[in-house]
Amino acid sequence: MGKWKSFLLVTVLGAVIWFLPVPAGLKPQAWHLLAIFVATIVGVILQPLPMGAMALIGITVCALTKTLTVPEALSAFADATIWLIVCAFLFARSFIKTGLGSRIAYMLMGKIGDKTLKLGYVLCISDLILAPATPSNTARGGGVLFPIVRSLCSAFDSEPGGPSARRIGSYLMVTQFQCNCITSAMFMTAMAANPLVTVLSKQVLNIDISWGLWALAASVPGIAALVLMPLALYKLYPPELKHTPEAKEMAALELKKRGPMTTAEKIVLAVFIGALVLWATSTITKLNATLVALLGVCVMLVTEVLTWKDILDDKGPWDTLMWMGGLVGMAGFLNKLGFIPWFAKTVSASIAGIAWVPALTILLVVYMYAHYGFASLTAHVTAMFPAFVAVAAAAGAPVFLAALSLGFLSNLCGGLTHYSTGTAPIYFGAGYVEQGTWWKIGFGASVLNMLIWVGVGGLWWKVLGLW
Amino acid sequence: MGKWKSFLLVTVLGAVIWFLPVPAGLKPQAWHLLAIFVATIVGVILQPLPMGAMALIGITVCALTKTLTVPEALSAFADATIWLIVCAFLFARSFIKTGLGSRIAYMLMGKIGDKTLKLGYVLCISDLILAPATPSNTARGGGVLFPIVRSLCSAFDSEPGGPSARRIGSYLMVTQFQCNCITSAMFMTAMAANPLVTVLSKQVLNIDISWGLWALAASVPGIAALVLMPLALYKLYPPELKHTPEAKEMAALELKKRGPMTTAEKIVLAVFIGALVLWATSTITKLNATLVALLGVCVMLVTEVLTWKDILDDKGPWDTLMWMGGLVGMAGFLNKLGFIPWFAKTVSASIAGIAWVPALTILLVVYMYAHYGFASLTAHVTAMFPAFVAVAAAAGAPVFLAALSLGFLSNLCGGLTHYSTGTAPIYFGAGYVEQGTWWKIGFGASVLNMLIWVGVGGLWWKVLGLW
Repeated sequence: MGKWKSFLLVTVLGAVIWFLPVPAGLKPQAWHLLAIFVATIVGVILQPLPMGAMALIGITVCALTKTLTVPEALSAFADATIWLIVCAFLFARSFIKTGLGSRIAYMLMGKIGDKTLKLGYVLCISDLILAPATPSNTARGGGVLFPIVRSLCSAFDSEPGGPSARRIGSYLMVTQFQCNCITSAMFMTAMAANPLVTVLSKQVLNIDISWGLWALAASVPGIAALVLMPLALYKLYPPELKHTPEAKEMAALELKKRGPMTTAEKIVLAVFIGALVLWATSTITKLNATLVALLGVCVMLVTEVLTWKDILDDKGPWDTLMWMGGLVGMAGFLNKLGFIPWFAKTVSASIAGIAWVPALTILLVVYMYAHYGFASLTAHVTAMFPAFVAVAAAAGAPVFLAALSLGFLSNLCGGLTHYSTGTAPIYFGAGYVEQGTWWKIGFGASVLNMLIWVGVGGLWWKVLGLW
Repeated sequence: MGKWKSFLLVTVLGAVIWFLPVPAGLKPQAWHLLAIFVATIVGVILQPLPMGAMALIGITVCALTKTLTVPEALSAFADATIWLIVCAFLFARSFIKTGLGSRIAYMLMGKIGDKTLKLGYVLCISDLILAPATPSNTARGGGVLFPIVRSLCSAFDSEPGGPSARRIGSYLMVTQFQCNCITSAMFMTAMAANPLVTVLSKQVLNIDISWGLWALAASVPGIAALVLMPLALYKLYPPELKHTPEAKEMAALELKKRGPMTTAEKIVLAVFIGALVLWATSTITKLNATLVALLGVCVMLVTEVLTWKDILDDKGPWDTLMWMGGLVGMAGFLNKLGFIPWFAKTVSASIAGIAWVPALTILLVVYMYAHYGFASLTAHVTAMFPAFVAVAAAAGAPVFLAALSLGFLSNLCGGLTHYSTGTAPIYFGAGYVEQGTWWKIGFGASVLNMLIWVGVGGLWWKVLGLW
C-alpha cells in the first residue's frame, strides 16, 4: 500500500473510532486514547513512516487533543524497562565489537560442527548461551550470529538466489531464525518485549514474574523445541550437504587467527557473566534489572571496551527508545484510564460459560496467528497482551499460567513471516529462501511450537504447580 | 590531565565529600547526592570520558548507593525540557538539510554584505533570525552559520594558519562566535540550557518566566550588544580587508545557482514560522513549548522534509538526551532533597548585611567567570544556577531580576574560552585565531557584555518594573 493511502487509512480509522459513541462505563478520554492507539498500531504495521515516527506522531496527537498531558505522553521515556532495552543494545554492541560473540560460536563449532545438523544445533546453542544477556533478539540473531551463518554458507559454496542456495544456506538460515524465536521465549532478558510482558502482567494482573520463574517455566518446552526444531527442518527442508568436516577446521583456523582472548573480550565476558549472575539472583539481591544493566554499561565505558562514540553510532537503542517509549506510554494509560479492564470485562462476558482451558486455548491460538498483522513483537505485546491476559484471567485461568503462556507465544509468533521481528528481514533478506517457502516453514514451525509449548509446556507447568 | 588521573581525582573528590560529616540541617541522602553530583560535574569538566558517559555513571552510582531510586535516577529522561531540546536538534537538522538556513544568510548578505563590518552584522542578524527557533546554539552557530562563514573566508582568500588568516577570517570567526552567545541569551528557545533556567527558576523560586518576558527583558541589552560587539571587535581586532564588494555578487550567484525555494524549504519555513508564532503566543494558547516542537517535528516527518533516518543519523539529540537527562535528574533531586535551600540559607547568612544590589553584582561576576571551569553552558547552569539564584533571592534581590540576569549570563559566559560551549571548539578549531588571542578576546567580550547587560540591562529592567 502506498504511503499516502496508508496514512489516509490510519487517519480515517482513528477518526472513526474517535467519533463512535463512547461505550457505557468508559470515560471518553479512555475511548479517545484507544482511537489514537489503534491508529498508531495500525500505522506501525502499515508503516507509511517508520515505527519511531508513527509512535512520535501518536503521542503528539495524544497531547494535542489533551487525551494525555505532555508529561503523561512522555512518561515512558523514563521507564526502567525502556532503559534496560537501551542497555541491552549496548551489551550486544560490545559482543559484536570485541568479537566475543563470534568467538563463542566458533568454539562450539570447532567442537561439534562436522555435520550440517550438528552445525544447526551448534548455532542454536550459541544463540541459547547468548540469549539470557542479550535482550534484543535482533542484536543477538542479526548482529552476532547472522554474520557467522552467512560466512559459513559461503565457506560451503552455498550462495543465495542460485542452485547452490539449498546446499546448506537455506537450511541454516531458517533453522537459526526459528531457533532465535525459541531462545527469545526462554528468558525474560532474551527479547526486548519480554520485560514488557512482565510490566504489563504487573499492571493488569498485579503479579510479579521473576527472571527465575520465567526461565524455569520455559526450560522444558524450550529445550524440547530447540531439540526438535533443527531436526524437523532437517527432515522437511533438508540441506543437500549433510556432512561438513570443513566446519571444525574452519573454526580452528578462525580461532587460531584470532589468538588468545583479548583483554576487551575478557572484560565483556566478565560483565556478561556478572550481569547474568545479578539478573539470575535479583530476587535475593533486590537489584533492579535495569540497574544491573546500567552498571555493566558503566564498566564497559570506564574500561573503554565500549566508547561513547560506539553508543551514539548505534542507532538501535535510540530508534527503540523512541517507538517503544511512545507505545509503552500509550499502552500504559490505556490501562490506567480504564480501557483494558472494561474490554476484559466485556469480552469475558461474551465467552462466559466456556471453561478456562478451552477459553485459554482459543485465546492462545488467536494471539499467535494475529501476528500475521504485526511487524514487531513489541507492537503485538503492547496492543494485545494486556487485553488477552485480562480476558484469560477473567475466564478463570490461573494468572501466572495465562501471563507466561501468552508471554512465550509473544516470542514464538516471531517465526511466522519475513517481517515479523527484527531478525526476520535479515535472515530472509539474505536471499536463500523464497517468500512462499519462508511463510510455509513459518507456519509449520508455529504449529510445532504450539504443540510443544502448549502440550509439553502445559504438562510441565502442571508439575510446577502453575495450574 | 590523563584519563586515569582525572578519574582518580573525580572518584577521590566524590568519596571525600561523601564521607565528610553531614552538615546540621541536611539529610545524609542530600549530602551524598551532592557528593555524586559534584564528582559528576567535575567529571563533565575534566572529561576522563565524554559527558554522556560521565552522566550515565553518575546516575548509576546514585541508584547503586540507593541515594536515588532507579525511577528517580531515570526521571529526567521524560522531562519535557529535554524533549524540547531533542526537537530543537531536529529543527536545526531540517534547516541544514534543506539549505533554508544558508539561503537566509545569503539573502541578507546579498543585500548588505559589501563591507566586512556589514558582513559581520549580516551574519549576526542571520543568527538572530534563526535564534528563537533553534534552541541549540551549537546547531545554529556550528551547523548553519559556520559553513557559510568558513566558505566566505575562502572566497576572500583568507586561509587559516598563515598570514592571510587576518584578511577577514579571524574577524568573522570571533565576531560570529561572540554574537552567537549574545543571540543565545536573547530567547528562551535560543540555547539548550535556557529552558532549563526557567525550569530551575520554577523549582527554586516558584516563578514562571514566560517566553515573552525573557525576550522582552533581553531585547534592549541584546540589541545593544549585537550593535556594539561587531564594531568593538572591528576596532580592536580589525580585519585587513574592510571592503568586500564580492560578497553581494557571491550571494547573488549562490542564490541563482539554487534557484527558487524548494518545497522542502517552504515546508521548513512554514514549520519554523508556525513554531515561532506558537512559542511566542504560548501564554495565550496554553500550548506547551515541547508540544509545539513535537508538532513541528511531526509535520516535517509526515511531509518527509525530515526522515526517520535523518533523526537517527543525528547524534546530537541522543548525546544531549543522555548527559542532560542525567544531570537534570540529579540537579532536580539536589533541590527536592533539600540541599539547594540549605546551601542558599547558609551562603545568604554569610553575605548578611550586604544590600542586594552589591550582593547580586558579586554573584553575577562570580557566576560569569566561574565558567572558565566549565566545558558546557548546561553543566554551568545545572551546577550553579539553582544555588546562585536562591542566594540572590535570599539577599533580597527581586526574583525575576535575579533569575533573568543570571540566565542571560549563563549564555554570555559561553564566549570566554575555546571549550566553553559547543560552538567554541568549532570556530576556534577552524584555525584562524591563536589560543592566547582567543582567550584575550573572550575576556574583553565578557567585560563588554557585563557592562552592557548589567548596565544598560539594569536600566531597562527598571523601566520594565522588574525591580
